[in-house]
Amino acid sequence: MITEQKKILDAPAARPSVAAMVENIIGCKWSLRVLELVREGINRPGAMEHAIEGLTAKVLNERLKKLSGYGILDKTIYPESPPHVEYRLTAFGLRFSSLLDEIEQLEKSLGEAGAACRDD
Amino acid sequence: MITEQKKILDAPAARPSVAAMVENIIGCKWSLRVLELVREGINRPGAMEHAIEGLTAKVLNERLKKLSGYGILDKTIYPESPPHVEYRLTAFGLRFSSLLDEIEQLEKSLGEAGAACRDD
Repeated sequence: MITEQKKILDAPAARPSVAAMVENIIGCKWSLRVLELVREGINRPGAMEHAIEGLTAKVLNERLKKLSGYGILDKTIYPESPPHVEYRLTAFGLRFSSLLDEIEQLEKSLGEAGAACRDD
Repeated sequence: MITEQKKILDAPAARPSVAAMVENIIGCKWSLRVLELVREGINRPGAMEHAIEGLTAKVLNERLKKLSGYGILDKTIYPESPPHVEYRLTAFGLRFSSLLDEIEQLEKSLGEAGAACRDD
């Protein structure tokens, strides 16, 4: 793991609040899909690009950079030849993902309640 | 419980997403404090107004209206003389409050991680 290199690549920006992260990520289908893949164990950018139809390398890299900047994903560079990169959920990212799950469930429960109320 | 009257008072607006609700409520200290009071069993607007220093009746009513509109609080009007009003968490509101707790804990964990990293 080349941590020095990692630090240079992912220089931390001002961290937004968790609520702002939630809003930002939930509003972006690519971020959600990328997170989903990492949770399924698809860790390499190349594999992610193949797994998500319509996702370009450029957009994928932007999403990975954003998720890493938020502290949700952790990037590891393996100094092989050719070197390869893997992304994993951080401890924070794991809890953050659970939060997104709960929000999704709440969203669904509201949707159902709304549907049930239409005939009232 | 005068449900007919309640429906007239709280005509439903277009419902925002759960993520937008999170952002909106976390960004408003009054909303957070009102929710906290309801969770502690302080249900009447008069008692809330006395419990929160600096909170005016106008702002309290706006917050209560917003939280009710979001489906987080449920308003009950008791037709006594004089009539009185109580607010309670809905089932959704209870889950939503747990979500806010989890976000607060995550926020704290990030704050601690940030502090721990300063000496790296």
